[in-house]
Amino acid sequence: MTNTSNKEILANFLKDIWTDGRVECVSKYLADTYTIKHDPGDPWDGKVLTVEGFKERLVQSRAMAPDQVFTVVKMIEEHGCVAVAWTWHGTHLGDIPGIPATGKKIKMSGLTMYEFEGSRISGHWQVADRLSVFQQLTQL
Amino acid sequence: MTNTSNKEILANFLKDIWTDGRVECVSKYLADTYTIKHDPGDPWDGKVLTVEGFKERLVQSRAMAPDQVFTVVKMIEEHGCVAVAWTWHGTHLGDIPGIPATGKKIKMSGLTMYEFEGSRISGHWQVADRLSVFQQLTQL
Repeated sequence: MTNTSNKEILANFLKDIWTDGRVECVSKYLADTYTIKHDPGDPWDGKVLTVEGFKERLVQSRAMAPDQVFTVVKMIEEHGCVAVAWTWHGTHLGDIPGIPATGKKIKMSGLTMYEFEGSRISGHWQVADRLSVFQQLTQL
Repeated sequence: MTNTSNKEILANFLKDIWTDGRVECVSKYLADTYTIKHDPGDPWDGKVLTVEGFKERLVQSRAMAPDQVFTVVKMIEEHGCVAVAWTWHGTHLGDIPGIPATGKKIKMSGLTMYEFEGSRISGHWQVADRLSVFQQLTQL
């Protein structure tokens, strides 16, 4: 039996799911339910998602910047929880509430604590620097 | 010799330094230099501070909301790094760039990765949900 650490699983999850948008891989990573404990600005904040619900969130979330790339800055792990500091960049090709697509290259940073049930990801607590995105999209 | 974990040290640091503003305690917690690796919106972002420099930052930062309280939501620790998810609330009694004091009760959330040298705190990587503060202060 191979012993993949939760940090390795999470790095693959961020690449496969959030950077590459591989909807067909979601079921490989997720627990039966996925709880978004805290994620201000995410339309699914506070919700408990099934795998199918998560797939919908993935597709809708990635529409804003389909070429998005998440880069891991640092990860630490303890007791079934992985904290990750990340940066993100992409091209604003999809409308977001109040701001139609601009075509601008944008970037953002954030940190997330992911919770695991065994080797499956069961939810997160996240804060992203939304203000910087707002500033990049609204300044000329 | 007592064995205080870095998580306990950090919880005390957040209470003594950031919630209670005890400038005289800074030297008890800090390494010789403190590096703000990433903290968008913080005027000291990217800087390496001495203990005295950190004290100046503390005093100036707390002036915005002198009654501020940080609450720890979750902490994990690995390899001399402690990640903490936190919430914050306070009263906007000090001017910030572009927004004079409003007297409003405001709240915010964020996550931080603190780095230790032994049992001393040597820097951080942080993202706070600045957009929510901006919205609370500018909406009627």
